[in-house]
Amino acid sequence: MSASTPNSLEQDPAFVLHRGGKLAVRSTVAVDNADQLSLAYTPGVARVCTAIAEHPELADLYTWRSHTVAVVSDGTAVLGLGDIGPAAALPVMEGKALLFKEFADVDAVPVCLAATDVDDLVETVVRLAPSFGGINLEDISAPRCFEIEDRLRAALDIPVFHDDQHGTAVVVLAALRNAARLTGRSLGDLRAVVAGAGASGLAVSRILLEAGIKDLAVGDSKGLLHSGRDDLNPYKAAVARDSNRAGHTGSVEEALRGADVFIGLSGATISEGALAGMAQDAIVFALSNPTPEVDPAVAARHARVVATGRSDHPNQINNVLAFPGIFRGALDVRAGTVTEGMKLAAADAIAAVVGDDLSADLVVPSPFDARVAPAVAKAVAEQARRDGVARG
Amino acid sequence: MSASTPNSLEQDPAFVLHRGGKLAVRSTVAVDNADQLSLAYTPGVARVCTAIAEHPELADLYTWRSHTVAVVSDGTAVLGLGDIGPAAALPVMEGKALLFKEFADVDAVPVCLAATDVDDLVETVVRLAPSFGGINLEDISAPRCFEIEDRLRAALDIPVFHDDQHGTAVVVLAALRNAARLTGRSLGDLRAVVAGAGASGLAVSRILLEAGIKDLAVGDSKGLLHSGRDDLNPYKAAVARDSNRAGHTGSVEEALRGADVFIGLSGATISEGALAGMAQDAIVFALSNPTPEVDPAVAARHARVVATGRSDHPNQINNVLAFPGIFRGALDVRAGTVTEGMKLAAADAIAAVVGDDLSADLVVPSPFDARVAPAVAKAVAEQARRDGVARG
Repeated sequence: MSASTPNSLEQDPAFVLHRGGKLAVRSTVAVDNADQLSLAYTPGVARVCTAIAEHPELADLYTWRSHTVAVVSDGTAVLGLGDIGPAAALPVMEGKALLFKEFADVDAVPVCLAATDVDDLVETVVRLAPSFGGINLEDISAPRCFEIEDRLRAALDIPVFHDDQHGTAVVVLAALRNAARLTGRSLGDLRAVVAGAGASGLAVSRILLEAGIKDLAVGDSKGLLHSGRDDLNPYKAAVARDSNRAGHTGSVEEALRGADVFIGLSGATISEGALAGMAQDAIVFALSNPTPEVDPAVAARHARVVATGRSDHPNQINNVLAFPGIFRGALDVRAGTVTEGMKLAAADAIAAVVGDDLSADLVVPSPFDARVAPAVAKAVAEQARRDGVARG
Repeated sequence: MSASTPNSLEQDPAFVLHRGGKLAVRSTVAVDNADQLSLAYTPGVARVCTAIAEHPELADLYTWRSHTVAVVSDGTAVLGLGDIGPAAALPVMEGKALLFKEFADVDAVPVCLAATDVDDLVETVVRLAPSFGGINLEDISAPRCFEIEDRLRAALDIPVFHDDQHGTAVVVLAALRNAARLTGRSLGDLRAVVAGAGASGLAVSRILLEAGIKDLAVGDSKGLLHSGRDDLNPYKAAVARDSNRAGHTGSVEEALRGADVFIGLSGATISEGALAGMAQDAIVFALSNPTPEVDPAVAARHARVVATGRSDHPNQINNVLAFPGIFRGALDVRAGTVTEGMKLAAADAIAAVVGDDLSADLVVPSPFDARVAPAVAKAVAEQARRDGVARG
């Protein structure tokens, strides 16, 4: 088949929009004459190169690195499509780069890698890193994504952030803070159940524990994680140790009886009966996309606050509320890493934007609320300074 | 030292120009509302991803790959500065990307790699390739650059082009064609001597042989390449086999006696006495930068045509005449590679732009002649079709 578009695709506005891709490169200096060329390129550029060779930190001032992030994927867990490979993942990474630019003026480059071995991916990203001020990992399957991120964070002195984990975790925490405020409770009061122990499920569980949730149970497709299970990967086992203090061993639905919060990140379904057994003023975040774990209209019969991942319902839990501002803030102060504190600060900032408009249908701002990214960037930059990881 | 600029640097216009780098990313679609977002990103993007997963060639239509090139370096041979490493090489690769954009509207991404082992570089570029429509290799030291390019050309189905080799070779050939025309000779009539057997010296020698120069001698720092030498790397040995049919064994200066053409790509110096012994209507291209092998004013006493790499003399041999149009043409027809014929066609196209303006001071067009890149692109695209490597 030649690269012409099947007729059926030409009817689809998504294909019309994607013709030629969604990104281009732009020159920020002119090279209209020999004088300009001799500064931007040889011989003038040689003086800049020499200065950076002698003082490597000058690369942050005199290259595009200070405002540029690589959006890196291996195409193994793309949206709900699974392992479709690097070329087919490219439209998503271009889309992510587009959002970086539009929401926080971060210049992002889609980098889809033809490699799936963990060692190969880590070494490839380490080799790429000199050209970029940060690494946003995207759509890499669990549990590989955990080791890849851990090793890259250890190897590199620039922010490394797996958005499927931490972007989701930050926005869920922001929404939960506001849902708790709406119902007059603190996070420490809440009994929460997370369905899903992949990239986002484990990261959400981690940030909830850090934020002060004491009673948390997390389930995968085989039931709740608990220390008696011998079928857990090390990342699930660690969360099992730190959660489920009540020692529940049953299903997610059983754990929901009397719980205050349900957070679905699983692709599974939850019955209305299970929701009916939750505590008063229940909070239900059914975040699987495109099909939530429970129909939001059904959930609303039993919950005070309902959120989904969908744009056609209130309270859309959308990572775009987090990642543009987090990288903008980190780059602004040349943070060497993204600390846990910076993520918590981002969640607080997102929650605070809602302010007095808080209602059951508005526990997180709209993805198009222009106040969000600057507020997140400011909070993240300030926290980076407090955490001692800012370099500028 | 913190990343503040030393005061002395702030006085230098090259540093002023380089503040913040020279490139940015630009969105080519709008995401101002939920409808646009749902086409450019989830859920609409999933349909495009699925189509590419089923028909990989659709990535050329629906991603930025069709117009995007990676400018890849390991920082081992940057300008005349040598092995300064990937971070210090970044301003040059940004500059190259800038030229791609300004001269041929090719979107280019600077990729400076923290790796120098040949195997590591090859595997890294192969892993990166799904995001790009072409690979421009840059400032990689010889002889590593030859093996890296050969292996990448074999491994990838997109154009791979080491500009230090072939960009220089194409422009030198264009200039030599016109210098021969000016002096009423054909390439086959010329006896030529090349000083320098690195990346550009060997590539220039190769293209001259392909273009029909029969009497060619090539020298490195130890003298002329000939089949009796046992100190040659395989790339020099191959050129030794195919050149120097007269079997000269002396120095470059000795070979210049009676020669028609001198091409310096060596960083060495050539004495006036050696030039004085060249044939009538001699052609001297002293291309080392910033200091040519011989002062052009001195060369002009003994040569009919003098060219340098410098912008402050006539006949600047500048790769920017070649690489933007070559990649533009290759991308326009989705060429799977850059053939020898495409390089020869590019040289012819550059030479032809000079036309009736041909003079001893104008054997190549100005780098700012806007006719060059479109003419090169057209010639390269047409040749790609003739060579059967065009896919679109």
